[in-house]
Amino acid sequence: MENKLKKLKTRLIEIDDLHGAAALLYWDQATYMPPGGASARGRQMATLERLAHEKFTDPVIGNLLEELRPYEESLSYDSNEASLIRVTRREYEKAVKVPPAFTEKFSVHSSASYEVWTNARPANDFAAVRPYLQKTLDLSRQLADFFPGYEHIADPLIDFADYGMKASTLRSLFDELRKQLVPMVEALTAQPAADDSCLRQTFPEKQQLAFGLEIIKRLGYDFQRGRQDKTPHPFMTKFSLGDVRITTRVQENDLREALFGAMHEAGHALYEQGICEEFEGTPLADGASAGVHESQSRLWENLVGRSRAFWQFFYTKLQDVFPDQLKAVSLETFYRAINKVERSLIRTAADEVTYNLHVMIRFGLELELLEGNLTVADLPDAWRERYRRNLGIASENDRDGVMQDMHWFSSTIGGKFQGYTLGNIMGAQFYEVALRAHPEILDEMKGGQFGTLLNWLKENIYQHGYKYTAAELVERITGGPLRIEPYVHYLGKKFGELYRL
Amino acid sequence: MENKLKKLKTRLIEIDDLHGAAALLYWDQATYMPPGGASARGRQMATLERLAHEKFTDPVIGNLLEELRPYEESLSYDSNEASLIRVTRREYEKAVKVPPAFTEKFSVHSSASYEVWTNARPANDFAAVRPYLQKTLDLSRQLADFFPGYEHIADPLIDFADYGMKASTLRSLFDELRKQLVPMVEALTAQPAADDSCLRQTFPEKQQLAFGLEIIKRLGYDFQRGRQDKTPHPFMTKFSLGDVRITTRVQENDLREALFGAMHEAGHALYEQGICEEFEGTPLADGASAGVHESQSRLWENLVGRSRAFWQFFYTKLQDVFPDQLKAVSLETFYRAINKVERSLIRTAADEVTYNLHVMIRFGLELELLEGNLTVADLPDAWRERYRRNLGIASENDRDGVMQDMHWFSSTIGGKFQGYTLGNIMGAQFYEVALRAHPEILDEMKGGQFGTLLNWLKENIYQHGYKYTAAELVERITGGPLRIEPYVHYLGKKFGELYRL
Repeated sequence: MENKLKKLKTRLIEIDDLHGAAALLYWDQATYMPPGGASARGRQMATLERLAHEKFTDPVIGNLLEELRPYEESLSYDSNEASLIRVTRREYEKAVKVPPAFTEKFSVHSSASYEVWTNARPANDFAAVRPYLQKTLDLSRQLADFFPGYEHIADPLIDFADYGMKASTLRSLFDELRKQLVPMVEALTAQPAADDSCLRQTFPEKQQLAFGLEIIKRLGYDFQRGRQDKTPHPFMTKFSLGDVRITTRVQENDLREALFGAMHEAGHALYEQGICEEFEGTPLADGASAGVHESQSRLWENLVGRSRAFWQFFYTKLQDVFPDQLKAVSLETFYRAINKVERSLIRTAADEVTYNLHVMIRFGLELELLEGNLTVADLPDAWRERYRRNLGIASENDRDGVMQDMHWFSSTIGGKFQGYTLGNIMGAQFYEVALRAHPEILDEMKGGQFGTLLNWLKENIYQHGYKYTAAELVERITGGPLRIEPYVHYLGKKFGELYRL
Repeated sequence: MENKLKKLKTRLIEIDDLHGAAALLYWDQATYMPPGGASARGRQMATLERLAHEKFTDPVIGNLLEELRPYEESLSYDSNEASLIRVTRREYEKAVKVPPAFTEKFSVHSSASYEVWTNARPANDFAAVRPYLQKTLDLSRQLADFFPGYEHIADPLIDFADYGMKASTLRSLFDELRKQLVPMVEALTAQPAADDSCLRQTFPEKQQLAFGLEIIKRLGYDFQRGRQDKTPHPFMTKFSLGDVRITTRVQENDLREALFGAMHEAGHALYEQGICEEFEGTPLADGASAGVHESQSRLWENLVGRSRAFWQFFYTKLQDVFPDQLKAVSLETFYRAINKVERSLIRTAADEVTYNLHVMIRFGLELELLEGNLTVADLPDAWRERYRRNLGIASENDRDGVMQDMHWFSSTIGGKFQGYTLGNIMGAQFYEVALRAHPEILDEMKGGQFGTLLNWLKENIYQHGYKYTAAELVERITGGPLRIEPYVHYLGKKFGELYRL
């Protein structure tokens, strides 16, 4: 049996090599590739993804998994071996439903669509991306239809990213959360607005980048096993457990973009760098779900990075880097500025309270597009209408409207956004437990130390990789299911205090 | 038949995608990869190379090539279709002789060996690379033995790089050239040495890089389809005809390294960027041979880049970039400095006259290692002994001795060096014909223009890619075979004038 497991692993590692190479091709396209490389690059990525898909759906894998079933059953659920077999089987059963030619077609289309979007967004040219988006929608529907028997056509797409989640569950969860958030946003924005002008001075790129690197190094991001480069849209990617990279972007007239972006992506990277090395090259060497991944990026970015304790250590250092801009600005003013709550247009720049409203708008639009209740042609106006209704503000242009996020222009429509809000909810649940177990986390943070928190997260989440589902992790850590209360409580307490409500 | 050709092309493009991806993995390893990525990276490159090899040696390819034989014979030899079939068959017949597992084993070993070398060279630690080199030698012998019937064990390895060449032919050719060079070196080094102190001042990296970019842009290197990055050892690599990259290194205390290195690699890149686009994704989208490739890097680096006409345009610009260092240095002094002939240790830094002696030493040692007449243990001393005998100088340390070139530490022993001297010989032959056809090339060069030369090279060499063999190209261009006379004549005239002999 161990021999069969070894055979399976050998095949999985080969597939992982193809995925790793495809990820590097993508990273290079986003960072350093000259424009002339684009057309072949799309083809190359598609070829690697098709080959990986072909190899993963080879009946030999299915047979090995069947033959390993008694072995798996003889082991404990928690064992790495049983988990590898279980998780691989789950992925295999999904993968065999999608024809390799379809995977390749989608990959080629996504590359082309992404290239068009990168030029069309700054030009505010929705007409240029519209046919691509239409094809993305058609392909997303076809992809969902390879999984008949769904309750909602978005369900298979959601399931890819957040296993076990469905449109109906998410709708209820999000409705419940919206009910809490909307009055909170009302109350907070009725107060005098925080003054964030201190963040909107001129901050030279070089110093911003250096300070961001200093911070994420202190958080625990290992530069021996990673690096940071610049891209138009920041992301985290992994080529192996020893090479987990992040990207960032800088706005010289706003300190937030690079600062919190770096912490966000570093949060994703800390997760991947913390996965058990034994999982290398197998499906277990991955995050548990989009939601759990976002729980970590958002935890480091917000629960840590926008906390008073954090800046009690870092603010004087930031003042030293930008004395002209910040010497006269108090810690309290800075802290209020980075936590300013406002009705705004851009999701990635939104404060913690309104952020989820941005996400829910996208989630709702995805469902309507897939249902056929909204056309791609009507999407920009629907976007504006939804923003006006939910956030009381809307962008006249599409650049800061429907075209602001890369997701729909580089992947499926469906399943791309729920993870952000699931992450916020889970992140607060996890953090509450961590602080209860280790109240010293806050004191360490005031001294610029994050070891206890990082170790707790590694121990409870990171090391397990893809071994447990999101629901299992939440259960193991909190002793119960996903709950919005810790998140709502966290927001209410933090922002109530900030806005003296 | 056209359908079969289409089928063949589809398969070839898939294989090319794998090679392109492997090349990017390699480029990334040399430029930006964090150290933690090394072990998985070696495995990933090996997997891609094995898959490419498996796919290329698939009997389906052999059958298609057989079925296409009558079609090929119905076409003219020069047609792109016939050439694709002919060249693919030639490569196929070589490839099927090497088992995929061997290719993978060699690839894994090469990555490991390269990693060890990058650390061992600066540490002057030959003992660290010795076991790797021994294994490289064993594997190189095994590789040659997959091609039984050779005259010399190096022949199959030479044939990979310079199709049609053999150890015996090269030995005679090199002996003949050595007979011309040795007295030339004697005579030139007996004269008062040129003063190259103007090149050995401090030149900040940033300005050096910018000036190098300015030059290669003027030569015609297309940055829309390429880019330059820094690596410990410069190289050119290609991911597609639209993405041909070069790398460079800078010494702040010597202007030559970055300046001539950039022109050398740009020469390789101009060749690849000039290949007929129709060949994209097939074996035809490659240089004709190592020798023809070097003929172009050396042509742009030396015949152009170290010529008086070239610097008549660029020298005042260089003075503007480095006024403190060069304002008081005349063009003539600078021209003599960049053409200083001396007995030196480092091949890549050697002048045009002694350069080939460096190459021939390596070529000779390769043959002896493969023959079993020299052991890896004895190699460092044999290197020193050969340098003393041929160049009258030897490095006490191995860093600037046997460990100076990456070739033996990242690929085979055998077939790695003859191309440099073949390139010098062919480059002079080609350049002579180009100047005869277009005497205006020199006048253009004095005005910083290279269009006529570049177009002639594209027309006669670059566009053809791998369609013609080196011998065919030489015959087509010069009307005869490879001859050393134009090269010897060029060296004699240029350096005789410089050293007033």
